[in-house]
Amino acid sequence: MRGYGMKAVEQPAWLEKPKPKAGPFDAIIKPKIVAPCSSDTHVMHGGSSPRENLILGHEAVGEVAEVGEKVTKFKKGDFVVVPCTTPDWNEPGVQCSVSNAHDAGLMRSFKFLTQKDGVFAEFFHVNNADANLALLPEGVSPEAALMTVDMMSTGFHGVELANVEFGDSVAVIGIGPVGLMAVAGAALKGAGCLIAVGTRKASIEVAKAYGATDIISYKDGDIVKQITDITGGGVKRTIIAGGNAETFAQAVQMTLPMGTISSVNFFDIKDTLSMPAAVWGLGMSNKDIRCGFCPGGRVRIEHLLQLIKHGRIDPTKIITHKFYGFDKIEEAFHLMDSKTPDLIKPIVYID
Amino acid sequence: MRGYGMKAVEQPAWLEKPKPKAGPFDAIIKPKIVAPCSSDTHVMHGGSSPRENLILGHEAVGEVAEVGEKVTKFKKGDFVVVPCTTPDWNEPGVQCSVSNAHDAGLMRSFKFLTQKDGVFAEFFHVNNADANLALLPEGVSPEAALMTVDMMSTGFHGVELANVEFGDSVAVIGIGPVGLMAVAGAALKGAGCLIAVGTRKASIEVAKAYGATDIISYKDGDIVKQITDITGGGVKRTIIAGGNAETFAQAVQMTLPMGTISSVNFFDIKDTLSMPAAVWGLGMSNKDIRCGFCPGGRVRIEHLLQLIKHGRIDPTKIITHKFYGFDKIEEAFHLMDSKTPDLIKPIVYID
Amino acid sequence: MRGYGMKAVEQPAWLEKPKPKAGPFDAIIKPKIVAPCSSDTHVMHGGSSPRENLILGHEAVGEVAEVGEKVTKFKKGDFVVVPCTTPDWNEPGVQCSVSNAHDAGLMRSFKFLTQKDGVFAEFFHVNNADANLALLPEGVSPEAALMTVDMMSTGFHGVELANVEFGDSVAVIGIGPVGLMAVAGAALKGAGCLIAVGTRKASIEVAKAYGATDIISYKDGDIVKQITDITGGGVKRTIIAGGNAETFAQAVQMTLPMGTISSVNFFDIKDTLSMPAAVWGLGMSNKDIRCGFCPGGRVRIEHLLQLIKHGRIDPTKIITHKFYGFDKIEEAFHLMDSKTPDLIKPIVYID
Amino acid sequence: MRGYGMKAVEQPAWLEKPKPKAGPFDAIIKPKIVAPCSSDTHVMHGGSSPRENLILGHEAVGEVAEVGEKVTKFKKGDFVVVPCTTPDWNEPGVQCSVSNAHDAGLMRSFKFLTQKDGVFAEFFHVNNADANLALLPEGVSPEAALMTVDMMSTGFHGVELANVEFGDSVAVIGIGPVGLMAVAGAALKGAGCLIAVGTRKASIEVAKAYGATDIISYKDGDIVKQITDITGGGVKRTIIAGGNAETFAQAVQMTLPMGTISSVNFFDIKDTLSMPAAVWGLGMSNKDIRCGFCPGGRVRIEHLLQLIKHGRIDPTKIITHKFYGFDKIEEAFHLMDSKTPDLIKPIVYID
Repeated sequence: MRGYGMKAVEQPAWLEKPKPKAGPFDAIIKPKIVAPCSSDTHVMHGGSSPRENLILGHEAVGEVAEVGEKVTKFKKGDFVVVPCTTPDWNEPGVQCSVSNAHDAGLMRSFKFLTQKDGVFAEFFHVNNADANLALLPEGVSPEAALMTVDMMSTGFHGVELANVEFGDSVAVIGIGPVGLMAVAGAALKGAGCLIAVGTRKASIEVAKAYGATDIISYKDGDIVKQITDITGGGVKRTIIAGGNAETFAQAVQMTLPMGTISSVNFFDIKDTLSMPAAVWGLGMSNKDIRCGFCPGGRVRIEHLLQLIKHGRIDPTKIITHKFYGFDKIEEAFHLMDSKTPDLIKPIVYID
Repeated sequence: MRGYGMKAVEQPAWLEKPKPKAGPFDAIIKPKIVAPCSSDTHVMHGGSSPRENLILGHEAVGEVAEVGEKVTKFKKGDFVVVPCTTPDWNEPGVQCSVSNAHDAGLMRSFKFLTQKDGVFAEFFHVNNADANLALLPEGVSPEAALMTVDMMSTGFHGVELANVEFGDSVAVIGIGPVGLMAVAGAALKGAGCLIAVGTRKASIEVAKAYGATDIISYKDGDIVKQITDITGGGVKRTIIAGGNAETFAQAVQMTLPMGTISSVNFFDIKDTLSMPAAVWGLGMSNKDIRCGFCPGGRVRIEHLLQLIKHGRIDPTKIITHKFYGFDKIEEAFHLMDSKTPDLIKPIVYID
Repeated sequence: MRGYGMKAVEQPAWLEKPKPKAGPFDAIIKPKIVAPCSSDTHVMHGGSSPRENLILGHEAVGEVAEVGEKVTKFKKGDFVVVPCTTPDWNEPGVQCSVSNAHDAGLMRSFKFLTQKDGVFAEFFHVNNADANLALLPEGVSPEAALMTVDMMSTGFHGVELANVEFGDSVAVIGIGPVGLMAVAGAALKGAGCLIAVGTRKASIEVAKAYGATDIISYKDGDIVKQITDITGGGVKRTIIAGGNAETFAQAVQMTLPMGTISSVNFFDIKDTLSMPAAVWGLGMSNKDIRCGFCPGGRVRIEHLLQLIKHGRIDPTKIITHKFYGFDKIEEAFHLMDSKTPDLIKPIVYID
Repeated sequence: MRGYGMKAVEQPAWLEKPKPKAGPFDAIIKPKIVAPCSSDTHVMHGGSSPRENLILGHEAVGEVAEVGEKVTKFKKGDFVVVPCTTPDWNEPGVQCSVSNAHDAGLMRSFKFLTQKDGVFAEFFHVNNADANLALLPEGVSPEAALMTVDMMSTGFHGVELANVEFGDSVAVIGIGPVGLMAVAGAALKGAGCLIAVGTRKASIEVAKAYGATDIISYKDGDIVKQITDITGGGVKRTIIAGGNAETFAQAVQMTLPMGTISSVNFFDIKDTLSMPAAVWGLGMSNKDIRCGFCPGGRVRIEHLLQLIKHGRIDPTKIITHKFYGFDKIEEAFHLMDSKTPDLIKPIVYID
C-alpha cells in the first residue's frame, strides 16, 4: 500500500509498504480525513531520534476496515475517531492515574511515528481497539472530531494541568492550534481574565472567538511586563503552548505565588530550561510547574466529543486549509512545514 | 433605624432598631440593592431555631458608610459587594481549606439572620471587612454583582463539589435561582450533556439559555428513569439544588459508579435522608456523596465577579422582578414567600 | 480438577471441574496459599445473586503454571501475588482514574466468584496477566503477600477514600481483618488520634499493635457518644469497615463538619441506609461520604508489597489460624463461616 | 528589654529594644525554649535584604505574658507553641487554600525577621493570637513541640507537596533538620523505599531511625546514578531539602515520569535553576515540580502536635545540643552558624 512519510531525515517521500495486520485485539483503519501536525514535520527534520522509511501522520478519523478476533465493541464499517495516543492498557504506566501517555515509559503510549507507521496511508493499525477507538457521535462532524485526537486533547490537558478554577486569571503562551485549544479550554473551565500571547493574525481572531480577553505580542515588548501590567501583578495560571526555552522562566515569573504553570510544549532536545531562583520565590512561592503529553484512549476522546456534540466548543475554527484527495497529503504536509502566516491547521479529505 | 424582618415566628414586620456599630476591623454598609431569598422566608416561618425581633436579608450590595480603625482596604463611600457568608478569619474552621463556611463550627460563618441582624435595613454590619468585602469592578453591574453573594456562590459550589470535568454528563435537580446558577456553572466548568430537572416555565427558559441540553420534569414520571433513558445509564455528576428528602436516593441512583453526587440544598430538620443500599452499589460503587454551604469571603466573590466582568456568565437572567424603594422590601419578601410561577429572583433598589 | 465451593446456595461442596485454559493474555495459576474471606461464605449463603456449581475463593498467592502467548512479563514457575480484583484493562471503566474496580460496570473487575471460578482449586485463571499479577519481591513472605490481595488493598482503600492527612483524628468502625488493615493504614498515613470500634479480644490486641490509640465497644453504649466524648466533638475522618445499616448514620454523626466518611463495608442488598438530615448538617456540613470496592491490578499490589518489604507494616498479625493441605480448605472455610471469637483471618497452605 | 540579633549585616549582637505591645488581637509571649535556625544566620550574613538593629529567632515555645482585648482563646500564663509563620488572616492570600504562607504576598505570613523582631528576646509579639497560637497538649514535651514550629512543619510540607502515596519510592535530598523531618514525614505518609541523601554521621543515624531504607552520599559519586541503580530507574517522589542550584536538575532527573519533585529548600538569590529539557522529558513527562514555604497557623501546629502526642513521631531525635540560660542564645547561634559535624539542631532553655 502507499503512504506518505520519510525515506530518511530531510527526505519526505511517498513510500510503498505492506498493509498492516491486526492482532487479536487490534483494528485496521482506512483513514477518511487526516491532519498534518508540526510533530510530523519535526520528525521528518530529524528532531527526535533519526527515522527511516517511516509513514508519518498521527491525526485521523476513518472507517474500520478490519478487527481482530477479540475486538467486541467495533466492527468493519464503523466510522471511528482515533486518538493519537493509543496506550497498551496492559502496561503498568496506565495504572498510575495521572496520565495514560506513558504506558511502558516516557511517551510510550504514543505509538505512531515512534513505534510504527502513521496514518498518512491507505490503512493504518490501532492497538487495543476496544479501549482506544471512539465512535463518531451523532451531531458531531468528522472534521470537528478530527480536531479532538491531538489538538484539543493536548490543549485541554494544558488547562487541566493548570488547575484552572472559576474566575482565575490565565495566560496562554503560543496560539498555534494547540494554544488556541488551550484558550478555548481555559474559557470552558471557568477562566476570568484570559490573556493569549501570539502574533499571527489568523490565530488572534480565533483566540478572541474562543474567549481570550486580551492578546499580547512578543513584538510589543517583554511579555512578562505586559502581563504584569494588565493584571496588576501576574496571572494565577499560565499555560505554555509554544515559545522556546526562554519561555520557561517567563512563564514562572508571570505567575503569582500559589499559582500554576503548565506546559504542553515540546521543548527541543538541545534546550536547557532555566530560571533565576528569584522568579520561583527562591523555592518558597508554592508555584507548581507541571507538564504533560497528550492523553489518549477511548474515554478521553468520548468526553471531548461530548463537548462538541453539546455545543460547548467548535474546534473547527482552527481549520484554515482543506485539501481533497489522498495525494494532497504531500501538499498539506509541506504547508504545515512552511507555517505561512494564514495557517493554523490544514486537513486532508482522503477521498 | 428601620429594618424589615420578623417580630417573631410567622410575624413579619418593620422593626425599629439601633444603628449597628463598627468594631476596629468591621464596616457599616448602607445597602443599595438587596434581594430576598427563600432562606429569609424560611427563618420567618420558624424553619430554624425560633427568632425574635430580627431584621432579615443577607444578599446586598451597597456603600460603605463607616469603617473601623483597623480597616485598611475600604473607606467610606466605596461601593461594595457583600458575601452572605462572612467568616471570622481568626477562627480555626477557615484554616481547613475545604470551605470557609464553618469558621467556629457548622455554618457559623453565616452571620446574618443567625448571629446578628440582616441587610434589610438602613445600615448593616460586616465583620472582618478587609477580608470579606469586594469592590465592584468596572464593567460589572450592581445587579449582576448582587447575584454573586449567595445564588452564584452557592450554585457554583454545587458544581465544584461535583468535580465536573471536561465532557462529563451532569444532572441538576431543581432550577430555582441556585439550581440555575448550578446549570450555568456546570456548563462553564465543561459539562457535556447537562440535564436540568424542573417545571417552572420561567426557569426552563433560563436553564436553556445557561446551557442545559435537556429539561425534564417530575410531572412526566420518575426522574431517575428519564435521566437513565436520556443518558443510556446515568450521569457522571449530579447536583442537588432543590427537591425534598426523596431527592437524595434518586440522585444517588441516577449517578454512575465512580461518579459524584453533590448537594447544596437545605434539607429540613425533620427530613430523614435514606437510600436502598443497592443504589449505592452496596457501598462498593465509588460514588461520592458531598454537600456544602455557600462559601464567602472577599477572594471568592472577586473570582465570581471576574467571570461576569469577562463575559463568561450573565447572572441577571435569573432576576425576574424589580422593586424600587426601601419600603418595597416588604412586597418583594412576600412575593418570594408566595413563589409565583413567573418568579425566579426579585431584587429591591433601596433608593 | 478438584475445587472447593458450592453446588448451590447453602450447599458447600467439593467440585470436579475442567482445568481452566489460558487465552493469549491470560495465565493459569497453581495456588500455594489461599485464604477464605467472609465474601466467600456470603456467596455460599446466597447473599448475592444465587450461584451454582461454583468454585469459591479469591485470595491466593501461587505459581504460574501456564501463560498465554502474548504474556511477556511472567513465565511458568514464577511465584506470583494475585489481586482479588483483576480488571480487564481494555474496558472503559479503568480509564476513569478514580478506581479500577468497575471495568465494564459496577464491581465488574471482580471476576472470581461472579464471572468465573475462584482460587480454591488445583488451578485457577487470571485475565490480563501482565497487568494483574505481581512477582513476590525479595524480603516479603508469601503469607504477608497473601494479605495484600484483598484485606490490605480494601482496608487501605478505606483510608485513601477518607483523605487522612497528618494529625487527623480518625475512627475505624469494625475491626475484622479489613478494619484492622484500615487501622494500620490510617496510622501509616499520618493519623493522630485513632479510635477503633470493636469487641473481639483478638482484634483489639492487633488494633493496638497497629496504632489504635483508643478502642471502644458497642457494648459500652452509644459509639457516637463515646467518640464525641473522647475527641471533644467528633473525628475528622471515619472509616466504615464493618457494622450494619445503622452504622451509616452513626458514622456521619460522629464526623466533624468538613470531614470525611468512607466506607468499604459490604452493605446487604436488603439494607436501607438512612440518616436524619441533621447529622449531615441539613446538607450544609461539607461532610463527604465516600465508598469503594477493593482496587486491584499489578501496580496496586506492587505498591502494597513495597510497604511490607520496607518494614512499614506487618500484615501477618491478622493471621490467626493456619491450615496445611489442599483438603483443609473445607475446614478453614467453615471456620470463616462460624467466626469464632479468636478468629481474625485463616490461611491454608496448599501443599 | 534585651534581645539577641544583629546590629547590621555580619554584626551579631545583643540589642536593647522596647518591649513589644499587643494590639487588640495580638499576644506578647515570654519565650521558654528557643532554637536557632540556619535562616537566622542567613539573615545575619545578609542573605536577604540587609537588615539593621534586628532581634533574630523564629522558633519558640513560651508563656503568654499579655493578650489584646479581643483575644478570647488564650490568657496570661498559658504555655503556647508559636508557629514561625503567623499569617494575618485578614489578608487575601490565606483564602486561596493552597498554603497560608503568602498572606499579603510572597512569604508575607512570615513576620519574624522580615517585618518585626524575632523571638530571641525577653518578650516577643504574635499577631492574630487566637488564630496563630496553639496550647501545649498533655503528653507532649515542650522540646518536641518546639520542633513543630518550623522544622517539622517545613519538612512535612515537602512530603505533602510531593504527593506521597502508599508504597511510593521517595528520595529526600539533604538531611539537615528539615530533611530529617521530611524523611520521618515520608515514612509516616506511607513511603516504601525511602532514600536519604546526605553525609553527616549524626544525621545518617537519625535518618535510619526515622525510616530511611537507604542512605547515599554525594561523596560516593553521582547521586542520580546511585538512586537510579538502587531503584532500577528512579523514584516516584523526590523532596529537595538541601543542596544547591545543581540539585534542581538532579532531582528532576532521578524522578520517574508521572512523579513529583517537591522543594522546601531556600535557594540563593544568586542561583539560577536550570535543567536540560531532556530530564523533564522535553516537557512531556508529567513530572510535577513543586515548592513551598513553611505553613503556619494554629490548626497546622495542632495537627503536628497530635502526631507527637499519639506517638507517631519523636521529633526530639534531631536535637543534638541543649543550652541553658537566656545568655546562651549567643553560643547556640554561633554553633548553628558553624555547623559542626555533630550538629543537627540546638535548643536553648531560657531559664
